[in-house]
Amino acid sequence: MKGLLGGIEAGGTKFVCAVGRGPDDYRAEVRFPTTTPDETIARAVAFFKEQAEIEPIDAIGIASFGPVDLNPHSLTYGYITTTPKAGWQEIDLLGRVKAALGLPAAFDTDVNAAALAEYRWSGAALRDVDPLVYMTIGTGIGIGVIANGQPVHGLVHPEGGHMLLRHDRTRDPFDGCCPYHGDCFEGLASGPAMHKRWGEAAESLPIHHPAWDLEAQYIAEGLMNIIYVLSPRRIVLGGGVMQQQHLFPVIREKVLAMLNKYVDSDLLLETPEHYIVPASMGNRVGTVGAFALAEKALKA
Amino acid sequence: MKGLLGGIEAGGTKFVCAVGRGPDDYRAEVRFPTTTPDETIARAVAFFKEQAEIEPIDAIGIASFGPVDLNPHSLTYGYITTTPKAGWQEIDLLGRVKAALGLPAAFDTDVNAAALAEYRWSGAALRDVDPLVYMTIGTGIGIGVIANGQPVHGLVHPEGGHMLLRHDRTRDPFDGCCPYHGDCFEGLASGPAMHKRWGEAAESLPIHHPAWDLEAQYIAEGLMNIIYVLSPRRIVLGGGVMQQQHLFPVIREKVLAMLNKYVDSDLLLETPEHYIVPASMGNRVGTVGAFALAEKALKA
Repeated sequence: MKGLLGGIEAGGTKFVCAVGRGPDDYRAEVRFPTTTPDETIARAVAFFKEQAEIEPIDAIGIASFGPVDLNPHSLTYGYITTTPKAGWQEIDLLGRVKAALGLPAAFDTDVNAAALAEYRWSGAALRDVDPLVYMTIGTGIGIGVIANGQPVHGLVHPEGGHMLLRHDRTRDPFDGCCPYHGDCFEGLASGPAMHKRWGEAAESLPIHHPAWDLEAQYIAEGLMNIIYVLSPRRIVLGGGVMQQQHLFPVIREKVLAMLNKYVDSDLLLETPEHYIVPASMGNRVGTVGAFALAEKALKA
Repeated sequence: MKGLLGGIEAGGTKFVCAVGRGPDDYRAEVRFPTTTPDETIARAVAFFKEQAEIEPIDAIGIASFGPVDLNPHSLTYGYITTTPKAGWQEIDLLGRVKAALGLPAAFDTDVNAAALAEYRWSGAALRDVDPLVYMTIGTGIGIGVIANGQPVHGLVHPEGGHMLLRHDRTRDPFDGCCPYHGDCFEGLASGPAMHKRWGEAAESLPIHHPAWDLEAQYIAEGLMNIIYVLSPRRIVLGGGVMQQQHLFPVIREKVLAMLNKYVDSDLLLETPEHYIVPASMGNRVGTVGAFALAEKALKA
């Protein structure tokens, strides 16, 4: 590789643009609010043009908020599609960035990019972390999936936050807050769900508040379904709610209890702390994931 | 391709061996009971040796009952591992067949092979059915998954039959019959679960018996979780219970109602009959899936 990689984390609230080659070679970054598409894309393009004068950039990756069109055979490939974000419906984000910079570019969801970052730079042999699931639990719940070396697309893209979980209304009479499904995973366990159920923000609830055991229970049930459907070799948990490090041992314990030794794997049974792990890249996971997408664009 | 492909469906009750090139070029087949490993493997080997005198065989695929070791870097790759089937624990099925026939051979679970058969010979462009999930609902519930062109392995392999579903005990007081998890998917919706709950075999229950609406509900909930985790482009349902064709429209209707238009896909919303489909190969899906594995062995 000669030049640098450019990464865009395109969020509904802010854009983060960076250049570098990975989590340990992260050169420069800019963060700015997401306003209109014209203004926002122009700011991103200007950043990469400036950076390219310092050191050449070979390719760009875009990790985008959604929903997005990931089907390379579709006329709207690379578009943000039906988002509620005003002004951003049917915006050709990939096409505009490519045209303005004249560089190879790749595009995926923010969570698939985060999964790719954790996969590419896990420190383990890739085969030992394949499949890998990245789950973010914060304002919403999203999952990214790598299987057989590539992000999983499909009908749309994984939407693991909407799984149906068991909901014991005796223990938890809260109806859930997903506008589509009420008490799906996100409706029961996202940050806003916790806030609404307990009447205060999740981060202000003390460690011994019963909120956390219930939260760990829902997360563990969501992971159970993922383990049964996909048999991942690594599960990475990120997002605002997962800043609560005390959740990890409780989640692992509940997963093992529910599996009841059905899945015969030493990795999971003996060293669950190497199986269900915290996100390793903090607030750079989006841009570093975008670097990994840029690498793919370069190889393609 | 010059010669034929050999396929073994290695089941706990019977072995099926066949030669051919696909579902439309299926030359010869033999079925015999699964007795001791020595005797059973010898009969399979003898069949392929006889067939090879008629027309050469280039490679062998084995679609096996499990649990199996699918990790090519493991010392027990290709083994049937901890099965309750007497005499079959820690049997090197792949190695013995390869050594006896001197041919390239590939190995996977019976459900992954079935998924591969439905993927390889779907009649659609491969990208239009990727990811593909094959689910069998019969004595047990199993899933096979193809993603990014290859079967998904992982920690072990997909075990979708053990997902946790919602269980409304007012509607269905049955405790479930899974020895590990009680009322998981398989514990509530397998053939034996139906038999135990209703006091008669599933196939003898009339079409308008309430058993079928409940069964469709559980299957639809299982599919919902698979759709959210993997976003498959095709779901194929096979196995004894799914011989009940009247289940299909009810399952599709329940899936669409529960999704509540969250997944924005014309394929799913407009033509669910092309999305959730019956298995297409009847009782040849195992051996045809094994042909697809043999093809992979030849390419590798």
